[in-house]
Amino acid sequence: MTTNTIGDHVRLPQGPVDLRSIETDATPGFDGDKTEGKAVLAAMGEELADLQERLWAEGTAGSHRRLLLVLQGMDTSGKGGTLRHTVGLVDPQGVKITSFKAPTEEEKAHDFLWRIEKALPAPGYIGVFDRSHYEDVLIHRVRGFSAPEEIERRYDAINDFEQRLVDDGITLIKCMLHISADEQRARLQERLDNPEKHWKFNPGDLDERALWPAYREAYEIALERTNTEVAPWHVVPADRKWFRNLAIGQLMLDALRSLDLQWPKADFDVNAEKERLAQEPEVR
Amino acid sequence: MTTNTIGDHVRLPQGPVDLRSIETDATPGFDGDKTEGKAVLAAMGEELADLQERLWAEGTAGSHRRLLLVLQGMDTSGKGGTLRHTVGLVDPQGVKITSFKAPTEEEKAHDFLWRIEKALPAPGYIGVFDRSHYEDVLIHRVRGFSAPEEIERRYDAINDFEQRLVDDGITLIKCMLHISADEQRARLQERLDNPEKHWKFNPGDLDERALWPAYREAYEIALERTNTEVAPWHVVPADRKWFRNLAIGQLMLDALRSLDLQWPKADFDVNAEKERLAQEPEVR
Repeated sequence: MTTNTIGDHVRLPQGPVDLRSIETDATPGFDGDKTEGKAVLAAMGEELADLQERLWAEGTAGSHRRLLLVLQGMDTSGKGGTLRHTVGLVDPQGVKITSFKAPTEEEKAHDFLWRIEKALPAPGYIGVFDRSHYEDVLIHRVRGFSAPEEIERRYDAINDFEQRLVDDGITLIKCMLHISADEQRARLQERLDNPEKHWKFNPGDLDERALWPAYREAYEIALERTNTEVAPWHVVPADRKWFRNLAIGQLMLDALRSLDLQWPKADFDVNAEKERLAQEPEVR
Repeated sequence: MTTNTIGDHVRLPQGPVDLRSIETDATPGFDGDKTEGKAVLAAMGEELADLQERLWAEGTAGSHRRLLLVLQGMDTSGKGGTLRHTVGLVDPQGVKITSFKAPTEEEKAHDFLWRIEKALPAPGYIGVFDRSHYEDVLIHRVRGFSAPEEIERRYDAINDFEQRLVDDGITLIKCMLHISADEQRARLQERLDNPEKHWKFNPGDLDERALWPAYREAYEIALERTNTEVAPWHVVPADRKWFRNLAIGQLMLDALRSLDLQWPKADFDVNAEKERLAQEPEVR
């Protein structure tokens, strides 16, 4: 039950993007079912945790390397579920999650990347953005919160910004969680039908849903314009939650494996310290 | 295999504290072995996650309630392992972990509680302190970083501070992870013997270890002085890692259960929203 080719399958090719041509309920690169998919993801946990600890260890020894997982997608596409089920597999000490909401007045008074910069993971960390700077070219385009020239400027600004992150040791994993409009309807319906989920529902979600075609177009343009060699996009079919979780797990595993992480060498005299411990007076 | 009385067993009674009289390798309140202990902890995951989601949901609806787990203990006592194995059971989105290191120059220029206040969990969160404001009466006392009068002032300041946190909706779970000097020796030896763990070793650890009796005394005084009704201390036997993890899991479960968390009621007209969703024009 190999999953090693999921990354290649969900990697977005360069060029114009037509999201309607990408299936939302497929399981590209994986031929197992839900039960198998969940088992394979759980089995990834050990290697993910081991590699994460190496990343952390390197960070304590001066390395600048770190991961940044960027999660985008329409409402209900499962950003939270990915955090719970996939990011939840690794040590929470080494994870920095930032959920970007509507900007505050202070944030609005700065360039759109100001608050993003402040949320970057420190060396050794796995950072996760639940929404991100991409909102500034998505909802801003759809809702007209920024002028067209400003939106236009932002695509290039994002590419320059991400190039700088990569130059500083950050491995970016950019994922769009891709659901169908029908799947979103079913998920919103479930939030309305189940009183334990009412708190997750916001009437504004239906207003945004009415703009589905405009959001799809905004995504298509943003994905095309920012699908760079150093920070490529992945479009992850997300109608099946278990595949979404599995695919993101595989992308994290691919990224960590590619770093060839090594345990840091001791920066002290190991034998001298062993001697000290052996010869210490009684401690009680 | 009940664990419901662990909390009562590890709760520190009021009055003078003699840490040498508290076993470090016991499993109070649990009569199972390591395999059973691990299974029981894993089985707690589901209820912990459910209660955490309710806590989070209440937070979105205006409640101020939250948890703050304070972990203290000698080097190698397992604060990190507790985070990985117990705190790691819940959704990382709702967890805010702060590891307190030696204070920065800016932090030193403020009162010792300044940086603590900034690290408090927001409503709905489970906050975890890996070390805490207690370092300011522990290492400060042992190393003489602060004058005796200042240390004296701090015990009362901590009690006032914690009373204020409780008044603002924070449930405090204060834990000292209690290991023996022999167990610490074995853990330091393992870090020296295993090259993959060299990065975890710091020669300064042996300097601190030489001060074990002074640290024990500092702990005994701090525990006695700050063992209040609203924010009591727990001394968790921590030589057995699996029991340490299980006990902290049980304490978190006890705290969450005591809150009687409810799913928030909808603040919108559910039927009207169902109608809107049913009558929407085709979205594609």
